[in-house]
Amino acid sequence: MPQINDPAIVTELTALYLTYEKALVENDLATLDNLFWDSPDVLRFGVTENLYGMEAIKAFRQGRSTKNLERDISNLKVVTFDADTAIVTLEFQRLNNNVLRAGRQSQVWRKLPQGWKIVSAHVSLLPG
Amino acid sequence: MPQINDPAIVTELTALYLTYEKALVENDLATLDNLFWDSPDVLRFGVTENLYGMEAIKAFRQGRSTKNLERDISNLKVVTFDADTAIVTLEFQRLNNNVLRAGRQSQVWRKLPQGWKIVSAHVSLLPG
Repeated sequence: MPQINDPAIVTELTALYLTYEKALVENDLATLDNLFWDSPDVLRFGVTENLYGMEAIKAFRQGRSTKNLERDISNLKVVTFDADTAIVTLEFQRLNNNVLRAGRQSQVWRKLPQGWKIVSAHVSLLPG
Repeated sequence: MPQINDPAIVTELTALYLTYEKALVENDLATLDNLFWDSPDVLRFGVTENLYGMEAIKAFRQGRSTKNLERDISNLKVVTFDADTAIVTLEFQRLNNNVLRAGRQSQVWRKLPQGWKIVSAHVSLLPG
């Protein structure tokens, strides 16, 4: 039988996710890049851009403004399937062009031979 | 070794996804509901709403306007992991309040004892 939300896996992925969140607000590019799957098939839909493949994701992060990366997160949810797949979602509030906006983030994590990696991500703002 | 993008699994999930797309534009609620994981842990971030659990998703669909469900999709991508997990993403253009807007959709499909189900979804518009 599939094991949904095994507590040990949920704890492990929650901790891993918080590593990502810290790296995001600190603009720690090495950690961010390392947590993503290094593949042409990785994908990140950002607030204003659709990025296909690790090279596009890296280039975007390198060119990104480091201002206003802070955000408040809520409703962090980690749903796991067996010991190989996790979905991490949250809601956030952050300044966007000096206006406080509400958004959502979804990530898919997969346990690969090189460890747990984000294989797909989608970040968006609710209409302002 | 993990099997990424096994051609038979990609073909299977592409066909399943197209069943979903057809049901979406036809507002075939029974098919849409059946393709989602019937669980309090399923989640759908829509263009304007954050829906947690199958009851919330069903209620939203039942209350939704059936006008302007048509859309043009592009860049449909299906990435599969072994025979249990798939990520289906696409870009779309549709009328939103009579304005043509561009958006993105991500879905996570998981093979459960009851078959392949969408366990998480995120739909958003790019800023207009």
